[in-house]
Amino acid sequence: MPKKVTIGLIQMSCDAPPKKNLAKALKKVEVCAKAGAQIICLPELFLSHYFCQGPKEEKWFDLAETIPGPTTEAFSELAKKYKAVILVSLFEKTKNKKYFNSIAVIGTDGQILDTYHKMHIPSLPPGLYSEDYYFSKGEEGFKAIKTPYATIAPLICYDQWFPEGARIAAAQGAEILFYPTAIGWPQIDRKWKNQAEYEAWQITQRNHGIDNNVFVAAVNRIGLEGELKFWGTSFVSDPYGRVTAKASSNKEENIIVSIDLDLIKEMREEWPFLEERRIKSENCQR
Amino acid sequence: MPKKVTIGLIQMSCDAPPKKNLAKALKKVEVCAKAGAQIICLPELFLSHYFCQGPKEEKWFDLAETIPGPTTEAFSELAKKYKAVILVSLFEKTKNKKYFNSIAVIGTDGQILDTYHKMHIPSLPPGLYSEDYYFSKGEEGFKAIKTPYATIAPLICYDQWFPEGARIAAAQGAEILFYPTAIGWPQIDRKWKNQAEYEAWQITQRNHGIDNNVFVAAVNRIGLEGELKFWGTSFVSDPYGRVTAKASSNKEENIIVSIDLDLIKEMREEWPFLEERRIKSENCQR
Repeated sequence: MPKKVTIGLIQMSCDAPPKKNLAKALKKVEVCAKAGAQIICLPELFLSHYFCQGPKEEKWFDLAETIPGPTTEAFSELAKKYKAVILVSLFEKTKNKKYFNSIAVIGTDGQILDTYHKMHIPSLPPGLYSEDYYFSKGEEGFKAIKTPYATIAPLICYDQWFPEGARIAAAQGAEILFYPTAIGWPQIDRKWKNQAEYEAWQITQRNHGIDNNVFVAAVNRIGLEGELKFWGTSFVSDPYGRVTAKASSNKEENIIVSIDLDLIKEMREEWPFLEERRIKSENCQR
Repeated sequence: MPKKVTIGLIQMSCDAPPKKNLAKALKKVEVCAKAGAQIICLPELFLSHYFCQGPKEEKWFDLAETIPGPTTEAFSELAKKYKAVILVSLFEKTKNKKYFNSIAVIGTDGQILDTYHKMHIPSLPPGLYSEDYYFSKGEEGFKAIKTPYATIAPLICYDQWFPEGARIAAAQGAEILFYPTAIGWPQIDRKWKNQAEYEAWQITQRNHGIDNNVFVAAVNRIGLEGELKFWGTSFVSDPYGRVTAKASSNKEENIIVSIDLDLIKEMREEWPFLEERRIKSENCQR
């Protein structure tokens, strides 16, 4: 019997007030679940504007909340109701008062299966992605999380440029890599760079799928906020890197797509990349 | 002053008799050097048909030779004459009677700068790439080799599916990754797989360039040999993964192209991926 799973990716614009974004996200999750989505993923930090651009301001720390907390509890109810797995990206404040860029993975009984703390925290070109001011770097590494539908790895935005995260998660058994994201074009003339970066973003994620024989789901926001016009173009790619679904660059869209996890096994019979790594060889440690 | 280097990639068909292939390769290297190529790369195992498909036969071990040896000596003369760096792919027999799929990197004084032994040795679908019968797996790891024109990393074919090789070589300072290759379409109906694999081959190599902010040069052979129709389509891509030169799938061609190594530095100012790896974190060892 083929091992199929239906995933739902929510591409949305994000407004300033968290309550408004939360209400919209809950509604969209419900739409996806009703349409049959079993694993549903929201974009990075969808509860607010992407506050990591522009001046570094202490006020944004007020957005942080605990996991579990009011937001995850709202999604837990939906997860339980629809027997769905939901990936919720959040600005997290832990009990020890550490701040992380996190994903709570909520299981089909509404419980938090695990929380991933973004490992790679960007402090990129002046003022566009100053995440280092707000978030500590994750300390728990990359995670493959078992769910009733598939073993999945939550990864976040900047992680997508680092093959290590994909590799380690796949070696742990991840079948689908989820990359909630907030990335876009700066509103300054950068000549060829805007297009080159946008294309590179697709290639790098598709390739993490190829090199690890797994599926990839990238979920970006849309809209113009401050200096950034977000790319949208959320997509799903298969283990061969083929894009099987892709959203527009400027519209809210739910991608609901069925994927066949058996393709992973089939590809690995011919191309068993994970098995054939030389990571124990001399000079192969970094 | 921009740091430019001209590279030459030789896409050729390979015949049965090594002497014929050697004569052709020497001529093509000379053509590239006269046209200004400073670093010249030949395809994988260009001295013969790709003997690793079909029945495993002891006779092919007769092709193996030492480094230095008659073949490298012939290229050393050209290297010296034209002040070129030449990457020569060979079936190598070492003094200790080990057999490797190797690249000799010949420097501008004709000396062997270093030899790379292919780390990932395929034993892929029945009879197509049975390299494990002929070659030991490399034991010296990945190498960044300084040359007068650029620091380069020789990698070979199947290595291209493993981000580890690219990563380690780039972390050691490699600015250009060279992938001499012998890969093609099997002459059986595999439905969508032939196209998917061909596209994946380009994506994975382009992406090693992106994730490490380096240039990539892929050099494949052409022609139909036994069950394999080789892809050709040798190419050069820049640190953003943009293909700046690409050969046809069915013609002998020399790609001679100037690349600007300063783009590496420029990209790293915005996207310093190597610096920001989390390889020392808990759970980030493999």
